[in-house]
Amino acid sequence: MTRKNKPLRSDIAWSSPDAITVKGFDLPDELMGKVNLGDMAFLELMDRLPTESESVLFNAMLVSLVEHGITPSSLVTRLTVAGAPEALQGAVAAGLLGLGSVFVGSIEDAARLLQAEVGAVDNDLRSVAARVVSDYRASGRILPGLGHPVHKPVDPRSLRLFELAARHGFSGRYVELMRLLSEEAERSYGRSLPVNATGAIGAIASEMGIPWQVGRGLGIMARAIGLVGHVVEELRNPMALEVWQRTEEEATAHLRHTSGN
Amino acid sequence: MTRKNKPLRSDIAWSSPDAITVKGFDLPDELMGKVNLGDMAFLELMDRLPTESESVLFNAMLVSLVEHGITPSSLVTRLTVAGAPEALQGAVAAGLLGLGSVFVGSIEDAARLLQAEVGAVDNDLRSVAARVVSDYRASGRILPGLGHPVHKPVDPRSLRLFELAARHGFSGRYVELMRLLSEEAERSYGRSLPVNATGAIGAIASEMGIPWQVGRGLGIMARAIGLVGHVVEELRNPMALEVWQRTEEEATAHLRHTSGN
Amino acid sequence: MTRKNKPLRSDIAWSSPDAITVKGFDLPDELMGKVNLGDMAFLELMDRLPTESESVLFNAMLVSLVEHGITPSSLVTRLTVAGAPEALQGAVAAGLLGLGSVFVGSIEDAARLLQAEVGAVDNDLRSVAARVVSDYRASGRILPGLGHPVHKPVDPRSLRLFELAARHGFSGRYVELMRLLSEEAERSYGRSLPVNATGAIGAIASEMGIPWQVGRGLGIMARAIGLVGHVVEELRNPMALEVWQRTEEEATAHLRHTSGN
Amino acid sequence: MTRKNKPLRSDIAWSSPDAITVKGFDLPDELMGKVNLGDMAFLELMDRLPTESESVLFNAMLVSLVEHGITPSSLVTRLTVAGAPEALQGAVAAGLLGLGSVFVGSIEDAARLLQAEVGAVDNDLRSVAARVVSDYRASGRILPGLGHPVHKPVDPRSLRLFELAARHGFSGRYVELMRLLSEEAERSYGRSLPVNATGAIGAIASEMGIPWQVGRGLGIMARAIGLVGHVVEELRNPMALEVWQRTEEEATAHLRHTSGN
Repeated sequence: MTRKNKPLRSDIAWSSPDAITVKGFDLPDELMGKVNLGDMAFLELMDRLPTESESVLFNAMLVSLVEHGITPSSLVTRLTVAGAPEALQGAVAAGLLGLGSVFVGSIEDAARLLQAEVGAVDNDLRSVAARVVSDYRASGRILPGLGHPVHKPVDPRSLRLFELAARHGFSGRYVELMRLLSEEAERSYGRSLPVNATGAIGAIASEMGIPWQVGRGLGIMARAIGLVGHVVEELRNPMALEVWQRTEEEATAHLRHTSGN
Repeated sequence: MTRKNKPLRSDIAWSSPDAITVKGFDLPDELMGKVNLGDMAFLELMDRLPTESESVLFNAMLVSLVEHGITPSSLVTRLTVAGAPEALQGAVAAGLLGLGSVFVGSIEDAARLLQAEVGAVDNDLRSVAARVVSDYRASGRILPGLGHPVHKPVDPRSLRLFELAARHGFSGRYVELMRLLSEEAERSYGRSLPVNATGAIGAIASEMGIPWQVGRGLGIMARAIGLVGHVVEELRNPMALEVWQRTEEEATAHLRHTSGN
Repeated sequence: MTRKNKPLRSDIAWSSPDAITVKGFDLPDELMGKVNLGDMAFLELMDRLPTESESVLFNAMLVSLVEHGITPSSLVTRLTVAGAPEALQGAVAAGLLGLGSVFVGSIEDAARLLQAEVGAVDNDLRSVAARVVSDYRASGRILPGLGHPVHKPVDPRSLRLFELAARHGFSGRYVELMRLLSEEAERSYGRSLPVNATGAIGAIASEMGIPWQVGRGLGIMARAIGLVGHVVEELRNPMALEVWQRTEEEATAHLRHTSGN
Repeated sequence: MTRKNKPLRSDIAWSSPDAITVKGFDLPDELMGKVNLGDMAFLELMDRLPTESESVLFNAMLVSLVEHGITPSSLVTRLTVAGAPEALQGAVAAGLLGLGSVFVGSIEDAARLLQAEVGAVDNDLRSVAARVVSDYRASGRILPGLGHPVHKPVDPRSLRLFELAARHGFSGRYVELMRLLSEEAERSYGRSLPVNATGAIGAIASEMGIPWQVGRGLGIMARAIGLVGHVVEELRNPMALEVWQRTEEEATAHLRHTSGN
């Protein structure tokens, strides 16, 4: 073996018998009791504490992502806790595993698009938006961050996030481009395609300097909290096994009838 | 099939085209921009928003649990993202799966013990503590929430949490019993067994009326945030594959030598 | 730091440029093309290849565990792949997470009970069975490996497994005690409590010298295969999102009506 | 709500009190004791039992994927079981989550490439191979299924799989193209780029009519078995916590020194 060891190095946190330091802050003295959980999440991502405006806006984004009621993800958590009630961590982990390209992934897709295009040569954002919509339409791809099956003609979370962004000085070119993409897409497709919550978060996260690669992480952080809430309700007022049994009966009825049972 | 459908019912959240309601609150208008992420977590668990004191204390507990640097759990997240960088949700889920009986589970063990014993007949907590320590010792079980491999003679997070609890009016009989357990255990075992962070959180959560069953959920909520931070560092400054390669080489060296390779 | 490194050692497998050795066997020459997947699983657990009889019986046990149609676990896999179709590994992992104490865990509970009792002082197994049933009944615990919501009065998988065990010389005292437990339980409770598949597997695994701690592992190995089958069907003929939407609508209908939406 | 229910339907399996049917076969009578675990996996994927030749080859492919010793994935399983030994399913699930694009994903990438190119217009496979290598090189992409950090100049598993494929009549145009890709790539890059195990499996799975989308599923099925083996060894002869502690110490040493602790 001629492989040479490479050094291992992490700058996140370290402990001594009487101290715990996280990203340069003394955890008990400088963070606990002084910053809220959203600020702590900001520190994890950005290596510094947020300003007051950043704190309001970042907490608002995360708060908007915590809870969406019965979703595929929360249903997964409930079905899992029904089988393994002694391993709550497994139920939450299972629920997180569905946060892929179809649902929460659109945060990072929107942020990636905006972060690629805002710095483009043609700095007229209206023409950038028109070009992007036209390109996506030509190649049959879905524009990220636009449209919602329930919230029409506007997504109330996006309205609120954009209002908070404006009030706190984070309504710049990323937010503008996101809105223009909605306008151009609605014109091109002739139907309601409002900026949805993941689009608004992708835009505002970009304003705050959060790299698009981390976009999905915002959803994961927040949803873990909501999934614990679903575990609590499932333990108190279960429904998962009823959902399973109905599904099993209906889905296999044709096999039963065929064979005369 | 004679099975009768049971109703399905969830009271957590629901949506209409222009509104999203979570636990009775209008999400965009009453929560986003008004409450922080820790308050939202409190709402998920307790079905109401926290008072100002509860908000400080509950956020402090969660903040204390977000980050512990390189742990088995964060190492798992880093090794997983190295193999599946396109599925960030899987890396965080993998890291959560180790939050079982050995590490974070002690929150619920401590809370369970306290919630069972504070209402016991013998209401002199010192004698309750003495009896519990003696029982655990006799049966060879480990007392939950006491002792720490690094933090000696006190865990600085517990000090801080107890100080905040006292300031905000949550230092009652659960906290007292937790401290008495530490004193009695130190006397009985003749070594340093301070209340550790999970013990302090178990006690304060009990003061706040949080059922012991949810104790592990506090750790899961918080740690999901910290694990996203480890994904970010691993993508920027990787170490997981180096850890794996060193381990693989050392762990199989004896097989190599035996066979002369 | 005064901690001294402990050695790292694994005896499972190692590689050199021209060879891969697993548990002492040359993987390409001695295993691939010569043993089947069930035999390979036996090797992983027992550090040796099975005899011909062991191979038939062990494969039969695993085959019986692969597929149970629409279960909470397979529904979880389908809901997860609907959200993250690009991460098949996450969908299978999510489905495995529900294999806890309620479902597959009964294999290890049954094996543990049998392995503890077969060596008991009173070597008349009928009286062991009577004592165990009486103890469980008195303390309100559920006897593992007995009873089934659908398969009555017998579980056809158990019948088949016991027949194979007898034919291959693995029908000894563990199998006998499992059957006696069923008889005594049916007498005591006055209802049908046949040995179910997990009970039969717990008993036969004990005959084969498999430690009870590994019992759940048999279910996990087998079910991972079945869950891939559900991913394939869900991608071809999806139903997960329909299940979710129906559930969401019914579970929140009372909230909608209350508020007049 | 104007949504209309869509039917739920699954054709995999169903049960009645005295029968369990999987893909049209009576589970106890026609599968248990008659087919091995690899054949059952084939049935799950292909909706029919394998021929004798398919059985040998398919089992060989899965057997080759079960165990690779200490990998990032098995290290994850071991670190997870150290924290949650009571939830074996979580440890295996965690290990599976790293089977993404970097490692096992190359099976599906190779199969996808082959399945797209074998039917291409230019039916001279040598020129297809030359074009593909040239295209990948020009766009800086990595050719799937080629090269291995340890196994040089050939991967012994690929040798064996190709030999078995030839003997059993599955060495057609997919296998030929995979080999030609290796030859053309070695010529173009001027270094050893043998077909690795994932490349061989991608090619042979294509010969067997397995859709590329399922390629990763082969790895997941097999590896779940191997990960149970690592749980067994970790419980008997632990190393995970030692790996963690060494990593933690080295990775944070620079923080300790800076601050004089």
